[in-house]
Amino acid sequence: MAGEEAVSNKQVTLNNYVTGFPKESDMKITTGSIKLKVPEGSKDTVLLKNLYLSYDPYMRGRMSKLDKPLFVASFKLGEEYSLIQSPQLLIKILDTNVPLSYYTRILGMPGLTAYGGLYELCSPKKGEYVYVSAASGAVGQLVGQFAKLVGCYVFGSAGSKEKVDLLKNRFGFDDAFNYKEEPDLDAALNRCFPEGIDIYFENVGGKMLDAVLLNMRIRGRIAVCGMISQYNLEKPEGVHNLMQVVGKRIRMEGFLAGDFYHQYPKFLELVMPAIKEGKLVNVEDIAEGLEKAPSALVGIFTGQNVGKQLVVVARE
Amino acid sequence: MAGEEAVSNKQVTLNNYVTGFPKESDMKITTGSIKLKVPEGSKDTVLLKNLYLSYDPYMRGRMSKLDKPLFVASFKLGEEYSLIQSPQLLIKILDTNVPLSYYTRILGMPGLTAYGGLYELCSPKKGEYVYVSAASGAVGQLVGQFAKLVGCYVFGSAGSKEKVDLLKNRFGFDDAFNYKEEPDLDAALNRCFPEGIDIYFENVGGKMLDAVLLNMRIRGRIAVCGMISQYNLEKPEGVHNLMQVVGKRIRMEGFLAGDFYHQYPKFLELVMPAIKEGKLVNVEDIAEGLEKAPSALVGIFTGQNVGKQLVVVARE
Repeated sequence: MAGEEAVSNKQVTLNNYVTGFPKESDMKITTGSIKLKVPEGSKDTVLLKNLYLSYDPYMRGRMSKLDKPLFVASFKLGEEYSLIQSPQLLIKILDTNVPLSYYTRILGMPGLTAYGGLYELCSPKKGEYVYVSAASGAVGQLVGQFAKLVGCYVFGSAGSKEKVDLLKNRFGFDDAFNYKEEPDLDAALNRCFPEGIDIYFENVGGKMLDAVLLNMRIRGRIAVCGMISQYNLEKPEGVHNLMQVVGKRIRMEGFLAGDFYHQYPKFLELVMPAIKEGKLVNVEDIAEGLEKAPSALVGIFTGQNVGKQLVVVARE
Repeated sequence: MAGEEAVSNKQVTLNNYVTGFPKESDMKITTGSIKLKVPEGSKDTVLLKNLYLSYDPYMRGRMSKLDKPLFVASFKLGEEYSLIQSPQLLIKILDTNVPLSYYTRILGMPGLTAYGGLYELCSPKKGEYVYVSAASGAVGQLVGQFAKLVGCYVFGSAGSKEKVDLLKNRFGFDDAFNYKEEPDLDAALNRCFPEGIDIYFENVGGKMLDAVLLNMRIRGRIAVCGMISQYNLEKPEGVHNLMQVVGKRIRMEGFLAGDFYHQYPKFLELVMPAIKEGKLVNVEDIAEGLEKAPSALVGIFTGQNVGKQLVVVARE
């Protein structure tokens, strides 16, 4: 596909840094042109054709202007999507017997995140009690299924009846509740986990974390993946129950998917057979065409998506 | 010392469960009598003569009426001090070549706490940056000295010039600051640790923890020993910066000294030679006589004590 001729290139760019919830108008779609050749004199640079865009909550941080970024640097305004200057972060796809889009979810960043946080940080054992918040999301749905593979009892929470049904009927969670219908999260968790929680996979933060701390068991483990309830607040909520960590000897640990890149082959060995045997279900929410990109991105922060949010730019 | 005759027995008892800061009037001193014999029909019971009382911040929790106690059960009102019904929690003193009072501090609960939290949970390595809050207290002064034994850079904070001087001049901390003179704890820590903190030994909680989170390094470790700034508040302060845990992959872990009882021999092997070589300094704040017990206990929550707070009941 090399060549000197310019082709049309559609881009989604950020107009301005975002405060509060992102809006569609924070982004714009423009059509430029691009030569299908890496720029003269560039080194370690790869020109990509984008097929799928994977939308994940961590992207919210990149849409703000932060002096001390939490994960990775802020987006540059007007930056385009397709010139990758750190190709060592790319994963080469070896097995093409599964749909390509799997590599944006179960076999990509969300899969490695769920794997690393649950297995590597929390070492779940058969019969342990696992709680997953934002459980129908890209990562949460996998955490629950991975925990079931080990024989854990798995409870999830999500923000609509439809999502709760998915958790119970498609993803095989033992039970689930709609957090929006629970005026008292502590009481809800106490009802769901009368014996307490061994492992909490933290996607939400704030009040949810406070309630979970009250319901953790001795030597409980919390894998801190993200805190989506906090990303659009000017100042994060306070968490008040951290003293629980002492008496219960709780371990809380943060992580990024990138910490487990070196374990990608080990991860594939575990997951690929389970996928091929139909033991792992994936639900994705597909927006067709780059024109849908801004609304799809905005939607993940208000819970519009059901399952992993993808944008299909091209099928091949 | 066995016998049927009754002897006079002075007791400090709690009048009522405490809210807010404890006051001397929450306790009273009474003199009763006791037979120097365990009660008829009792099993696994030991009658103790109390020589030293060790006062530690965790005791605040026992002075409240809590349905779900954080560490151990609330004191029973009017309970006396000397009948121990769980003798498996007692440690037999083998080496009497050091002053007996050492077993209430460096060779007792504070020593094992400092050892377990620092060495077992945080695995300090030479050259790492260690921060200790409430650093002149019974546990903090040992944490700093233990970290120096490994070759760490150690910074402490305390609440008076006198305590800060102790940290620098007696305990061998590399540096120290008075937190009461720092209007901006984030800025203070940034000044003290321009490269960030690898290990935080947490004794304080609240605003201090929030500031520390902003100054932790990637893969930092926080041993959560206690949160003395929170014990006398009706509702604990909120901690707002927990998202730092994710991007920096911070591990926070709570613990109790009792978790390390089985490692007491290993701990002695490490500490006893250092004590005998004069490498470890202990500063204790001694109140003479049981009459001083209430004021000494009240004092540890307002920072009156300098070093480990002891009450001498009898010398032998």
